[in-house]
Amino acid sequence: MLPDQIQLAPNGPSLSRIVAGTMTWGEWGAKLSTNEMAELIGTCLDNGITTFDHADIYGHYSTESDFGEALAALGSSVRGSLQLVSKCGIRLVTARRPENRVKSYDTSKEYIIKSAERSLSNLRTDYLDVFLIHRPDTLMDPVEVAEAFQELKDSGKVLHFGVSNFTPSQFELLNDHFPLVTNQVECNPLHSDLLFDGTFDQLLRRQLKPMIWSPLGGKRYFNGESTIVLRLRDAVRMIAKKHDTTENVILLAWLLKHPSGMLPVVGTTKAERLVEARAALGVDLDRQDWFVILEAARGAEVA
Amino acid sequence: MLPDQIQLAPNGPSLSRIVAGTMTWGEWGAKLSTNEMAELIGTCLDNGITTFDHADIYGHYSTESDFGEALAALGSSVRGSLQLVSKCGIRLVTARRPENRVKSYDTSKEYIIKSAERSLSNLRTDYLDVFLIHRPDTLMDPVEVAEAFQELKDSGKVLHFGVSNFTPSQFELLNDHFPLVTNQVECNPLHSDLLFDGTFDQLLRRQLKPMIWSPLGGKRYFNGESTIVLRLRDAVRMIAKKHDTTENVILLAWLLKHPSGMLPVVGTTKAERLVEARAALGVDLDRQDWFVILEAARGAEVA
Amino acid sequence: MLPDQIQLAPNGPSLSRIVAGTMTWGEWGAKLSTNEMAELIGTCLDNGITTFDHADIYGHYSTESDFGEALAALGSSVRGSLQLVSKCGIRLVTARRPENRVKSYDTSKEYIIKSAERSLSNLRTDYLDVFLIHRPDTLMDPVEVAEAFQELKDSGKVLHFGVSNFTPSQFELLNDHFPLVTNQVECNPLHSDLLFDGTFDQLLRRQLKPMIWSPLGGKRYFNGESTIVLRLRDAVRMIAKKHDTTENVILLAWLLKHPSGMLPVVGTTKAERLVEARAALGVDLDRQDWFVILEAARGAEVA
Repeated sequence: MLPDQIQLAPNGPSLSRIVAGTMTWGEWGAKLSTNEMAELIGTCLDNGITTFDHADIYGHYSTESDFGEALAALGSSVRGSLQLVSKCGIRLVTARRPENRVKSYDTSKEYIIKSAERSLSNLRTDYLDVFLIHRPDTLMDPVEVAEAFQELKDSGKVLHFGVSNFTPSQFELLNDHFPLVTNQVECNPLHSDLLFDGTFDQLLRRQLKPMIWSPLGGKRYFNGESTIVLRLRDAVRMIAKKHDTTENVILLAWLLKHPSGMLPVVGTTKAERLVEARAALGVDLDRQDWFVILEAARGAEVA
Repeated sequence: MLPDQIQLAPNGPSLSRIVAGTMTWGEWGAKLSTNEMAELIGTCLDNGITTFDHADIYGHYSTESDFGEALAALGSSVRGSLQLVSKCGIRLVTARRPENRVKSYDTSKEYIIKSAERSLSNLRTDYLDVFLIHRPDTLMDPVEVAEAFQELKDSGKVLHFGVSNFTPSQFELLNDHFPLVTNQVECNPLHSDLLFDGTFDQLLRRQLKPMIWSPLGGKRYFNGESTIVLRLRDAVRMIAKKHDTTENVILLAWLLKHPSGMLPVVGTTKAERLVEARAALGVDLDRQDWFVILEAARGAEVA
Repeated sequence: MLPDQIQLAPNGPSLSRIVAGTMTWGEWGAKLSTNEMAELIGTCLDNGITTFDHADIYGHYSTESDFGEALAALGSSVRGSLQLVSKCGIRLVTARRPENRVKSYDTSKEYIIKSAERSLSNLRTDYLDVFLIHRPDTLMDPVEVAEAFQELKDSGKVLHFGVSNFTPSQFELLNDHFPLVTNQVECNPLHSDLLFDGTFDQLLRRQLKPMIWSPLGGKRYFNGESTIVLRLRDAVRMIAKKHDTTENVILLAWLLKHPSGMLPVVGTTKAERLVEARAALGVDLDRQDWFVILEAARGAEVA
């Protein structure tokens, strides 16, 4: 049984190994009421899922604030029991941000600081545990980003900093200027290229744990009808049966088996799915079964 | 307004931010007379464009010598007011080099030294400010190249060394053996892959400024009829209108906005175009407009 | 004339520049008898080919043992005159390993140590000169591999360690934890991508020599009928004629010309081919001829 908590980096925060992803809690998905959100937060905490992953843009810039109301409803004592991760840097075109004319990135010092402050205000909290640059900005000036991070750290508004969807080269550039604690990237059997392109090699070398978005493969896995998806689901079901568990658990266990120490960000709003996710910590996949899944998803045996 | 001059590397030379590219000044293009070249050099110098980019092969090994005659006509006092960049390492098949049987690369010590000496003689000068390996040679022995560079430096024939069209890995290999001051690469909205592949990340990390060839996108931009080109030109025109300037200026400003500190090598032989290029130093593109151009050229919004 | 022996790494072993590859000596090819193998080993040694390249899987886990019987027949004094390289980490599905259910990788500490010990027993020897991880294992834990290597080194069972088919990033990850002496990779004119992707740049930077499998291009070169193969063979033949030698020799000389110091692993079981291979040490290809071969194989002149 893997522990419920994991340290993200040598000087990084302890997060729960299974992270609750909030992207679909609000306007972009289940549209949970304040009460429902508060209840879901409680279920997470009761099940060792103490870390909540946000981004300013979720729900077209509305979900952080919905979540903040639920947090407030739970009372101020709850903040110390959980960790909040958020992200900034994407400008979405939406009525809520009339100044945005084109989907684009902004990692200027001013924009990063303003984004963090808005997230704090929306989440009704004094600090973020981890703050990430959401996408690699072609115009990123690492000196400027480092200045923004330092200012947010010095003021106590953010404790740790990282990135999301960065290539190893982009990560290295920013990490030269400010120590990062994670790179949150997409990985699942249907999206496995990062297992081969050096992204995880880099994090392993630096003893940084990756956070993983879309750990189950999303709709493509569950609704896909392609030969590859059908074969993959057969393979996963067979292994799930062997472990007397569900496909979801096996897909998470597949990620947890990787030596980099992945933290899957589970995006469901269903309480039973979150409880189930934690069960993956107890499944140690056999190496050969791991490759059965990889082979099914890639459509070819290894070289 | 960006300064007219920029330091290429921590211990590197100061070059003009806008560089005049000579590839089409001679046989491969406008076939300027000695007088015309002398006049064009004068126009450049009068407009803060003090750096001239050459390669031994331009005009099938003839343009350096044409330019050298123009330099001589301007008198010996002019040399101190300008910087000469040249390149070696490509063997072209041409009647002027009967020993060349196949287009190929040569970065042997002997070939590099001989090439530099020929460039000095053709350009009628005692030294080159910067000397580049034109293309990554699969057979490059970094020890041998470093020996050639050191010999050329010790003799005062070349002040600084760099490369062109190198991948980050090739750059790192040679830079381990001899400190390089730049990597001259192609970049423009229609050729933007290097913005994502680590080339500029590496230069930023090392505080080296890239020189940029084909900064406008060449004929493909100006004569292209594809959907992408038409859309890109619409976007650039719209932004040019907003700044009350030309498409050329906007395309250069797009490069100048990048945090790596790019030096566009402008290849025109028209005096008014060179003067116009300098105007780009005064245009600070809005970040969103920068992404409007990127999106138009790549045919998709950012992720 | 290049020397018969070459040092693989600053603190690495001396191997013969031409290595005999045993993949097809047994069940996967010529099915040589013990006497025939012993004779072929003798021919190699008589011709300066003192290094023999194995992998546990060759002949579905049978060729090491066939070779071991031949070695035993040659008497114990022969061991000091030759070097044995082997590899582990691939699980093949075969009746000889009923525990293997899917072609997969295993680089667990236990599996590596057990594999080395089996290779020693099969080869009837006390030590391996070099032991390689055969393929990059997505689940490789570098700490665990380093522990296995250290234990094998401390016990004197293996003198040096390396990898095969690793990307630069994967190599760097493991090399951080244990000093590697080589990366054995595929390279020939029809498989030349590694000349451009940084694999050899990395080895050059670290002064490690690559071992090269399939140095001639295998059946594709000799039996191929595509335009590219026909053009390549024409080019190679023309150059062979000029040097009064064979296509094989030119193909090997093409690799030996590379500054990284490649050690071709020659896979033939024909004595005359092995003797012939050594002749490549005496052929110093002209740089332009090298590019004639590259251009023919890639179907385009260099940029």
